[in-house]
Amino acid sequence: MAALSQVRKLRDDMEIVAFERGRYTSYSACGIPYLVGGEVESIESLIARTPQVFRDRLRVDVRTRHEVTAIDLDDRAVEVRALDQDRTLRMGFDQLLIATGGNPVRPDLPGIDNPHVHGVQTLGDAERLLAEVTGGDVREIVVVGGGYIGLEMAEAFVRRGAHVTLLEASTQIMATLDPDMAELVLAALRRFGVDVRLQEGAKSFEDGQVQTEAGVVPADLVVLGLGVQPNSALARDAGLTLGVRDSIRVDRRQQTSASGVWSAGDCCESIHLVSGRPIHVALGTVANKQSRVAGINIGGGYATFGGVVGTAITKICNVEVARTGLSEREATEAGFLFQSTVIEASTRARYLADAPLATVKLLAEQGTGRLLGGQIVGEEGAGKRIDVLATALTAGMTVRAMIDLDLGYAPPFSPVWDPVLVAARVAAGAAV
Amino acid sequence: MAALSQVRKLRDDMEIVAFERGRYTSYSACGIPYLVGGEVESIESLIARTPQVFRDRLRVDVRTRHEVTAIDLDDRAVEVRALDQDRTLRMGFDQLLIATGGNPVRPDLPGIDNPHVHGVQTLGDAERLLAEVTGGDVREIVVVGGGYIGLEMAEAFVRRGAHVTLLEASTQIMATLDPDMAELVLAALRRFGVDVRLQEGAKSFEDGQVQTEAGVVPADLVVLGLGVQPNSALARDAGLTLGVRDSIRVDRRQQTSASGVWSAGDCCESIHLVSGRPIHVALGTVANKQSRVAGINIGGGYATFGGVVGTAITKICNVEVARTGLSEREATEAGFLFQSTVIEASTRARYLADAPLATVKLLAEQGTGRLLGGQIVGEEGAGKRIDVLATALTAGMTVRAMIDLDLGYAPPFSPVWDPVLVAARVAAGAAV
Repeated sequence: MAALSQVRKLRDDMEIVAFERGRYTSYSACGIPYLVGGEVESIESLIARTPQVFRDRLRVDVRTRHEVTAIDLDDRAVEVRALDQDRTLRMGFDQLLIATGGNPVRPDLPGIDNPHVHGVQTLGDAERLLAEVTGGDVREIVVVGGGYIGLEMAEAFVRRGAHVTLLEASTQIMATLDPDMAELVLAALRRFGVDVRLQEGAKSFEDGQVQTEAGVVPADLVVLGLGVQPNSALARDAGLTLGVRDSIRVDRRQQTSASGVWSAGDCCESIHLVSGRPIHVALGTVANKQSRVAGINIGGGYATFGGVVGTAITKICNVEVARTGLSEREATEAGFLFQSTVIEASTRARYLADAPLATVKLLAEQGTGRLLGGQIVGEEGAGKRIDVLATALTAGMTVRAMIDLDLGYAPPFSPVWDPVLVAARVAAGAAV
Repeated sequence: MAALSQVRKLRDDMEIVAFERGRYTSYSACGIPYLVGGEVESIESLIARTPQVFRDRLRVDVRTRHEVTAIDLDDRAVEVRALDQDRTLRMGFDQLLIATGGNPVRPDLPGIDNPHVHGVQTLGDAERLLAEVTGGDVREIVVVGGGYIGLEMAEAFVRRGAHVTLLEASTQIMATLDPDMAELVLAALRRFGVDVRLQEGAKSFEDGQVQTEAGVVPADLVVLGLGVQPNSALARDAGLTLGVRDSIRVDRRQQTSASGVWSAGDCCESIHLVSGRPIHVALGTVANKQSRVAGINIGGGYATFGGVVGTAITKICNVEVARTGLSEREATEAGFLFQSTVIEASTRARYLADAPLATVKLLAEQGTGRLLGGQIVGEEGAGKRIDVLATALTAGMTVRAMIDLDLGYAPPFSPVWDPVLVAARVAAGAAV
């Protein structure tokens, strides 16, 4: 819908039809954990713009509960199933935008279709989760997967007074962080009261319990936090080129391998500016940037999306967690030799009461000193410092050049040497 | 002292002597308003390292209450007055660092030497201010000057329960902001209860009152917040080249016009990376960077200081205020044609309760779209976003390139489009 807003601004004359399988448009899936945790008032708060707003203000013919079932590139037409009317229609197009998003990963395990096993993706999911939580008899929660959504949901349920067990099949939570930084987040989760179990995956789901690799865990409700995979089946079936993790391959203008067919959001690929390689990122901010670009191009303008540097941030159990660029594993996979630096510094002047602490990790390329990635775990004010690293990565800065960065300094905001600069100094190995 | 730490790390053999006119070394002048406001426990908290620590750990012969009165470049020696012993000594040097800092501007007005008229610079100032505040009968405060220190002191005294009148001779407070952004800060000050008077300078100081251009204001205590001028008289008298506002001219290694004579801190010049011109900046963070560079070079290493982009930040009466790069006036003076953009956006997802707001202003060069400067005034989370702009300025980014910046997004930290990105979008005039 963000793309269509752009199209309409550029082209008053275009006829725009939008098919949506669900009932909602333009909502924030990222807000669902905060809804469940009680920090967002209602499901309606998560809706940026209703279908009716698009119809009225942007003259977009929004058809909800309509699922596109096939794309015919030769005939330039789509097959659509009207879900509530049990009928099928066919509609031609001059230009097509595929914005089918992502699907939460649902492992093929016994009982996965049990009604108490929930994804965290659609407002339908949100409705069901909220109904269970406010229903009152949900005491035991099992969260499967220790990524961003899994952790955010675990915290939300603890805030609701539930007992939460988090199952993570691998040896660490937050696979996008290096193990040493993930360890800091793990400690925060445990302090908050989440029963985190590493190397203990789910084996099957039953009423009232989950069988794990180590035993049985009581579960009134199960949340799947195993990440998102691109929803690209339609594109694949139409013969469009797919890329990383079967996401839809697009060029810099968000055009797919077929002329006049575009894609944006969780269903398509991005370029990672540090590795130079394609990557699949399922994040609202990337989706919005891609959509803006796709919309401008569909409307006859010219815009490109440069790519991502892999930034992500969250707040978990009072700890701010952020990362950007390449992790150690990713840097190694991309062929870099690098040095890692970890420092701890306060995010305010130390003489102010309760100055919060931040741990900052930087990866710098051997020889050139080019920044390759950064991770931050800390208290208040720590997380958004990742933006300086993301900007420096985009600019291709070396850690030595970063020492000179003229970052804002005043006692309530930073020590004289901002934690990012402290890290850059150490990383540069500059006579310190 | 920051420079000497570097020297000692590189050179175990050097004999290092430090002369300091006052009683303290390595303290945070920036912390004084927070001490007066009651947010810092004691004067001792503002001391990073005492002279004794330097003597014991770094083998620096620190001589407090010793004032250098002359530099003899031909003889490579300094004349020093031992203030407590009323005697003079002469000491030769191989290398000399001039780190004489800045002096608060004291206008030549009747009564300026009244003991109730205070600067805000040394820990001596801090002691006197604290004694007056905790003495108990200080009800009426006059702050002269509407810059960072003046505003911070005004807030501190209001927090102490005093009535504060702020006199600003010009038409706006915060001369480093554009008038429209300064207006937002003015409103916050007035909401907080500060009696701000524009175009009303002080004329004379008397016991219990200040004569202004408009009348008489009661004043148990007067604080001067008129900025800092470089303390470069010693350097000038020695024949060293001075630059902007009589600050000491230095090269990229912080060397003055005399070989082996170095300078760092509020007494010397910096290069502004946007205008390409020399500038005088009196800020602890710049002083520390310059000192690190000077120390490495004195120790026989090689380091350079790239320059500043003019970043400053403060928190005034619950409003965060930050600026970087060139203001409209500065951009015009530097010969730029530019376009200004002002947007308002929230610093968190809007569906979270009490999402704070930020006003972001960007200046972009006409034609190229290069970012020239930015200003931010807003609520929680607004101010430190200036660091993204400072980093983008250092990298020479265009506002169009900034749209793609992969900034951290999660509901507690940002809307999907971070306020900085919203501003960049509008500034780029990109089909929006």
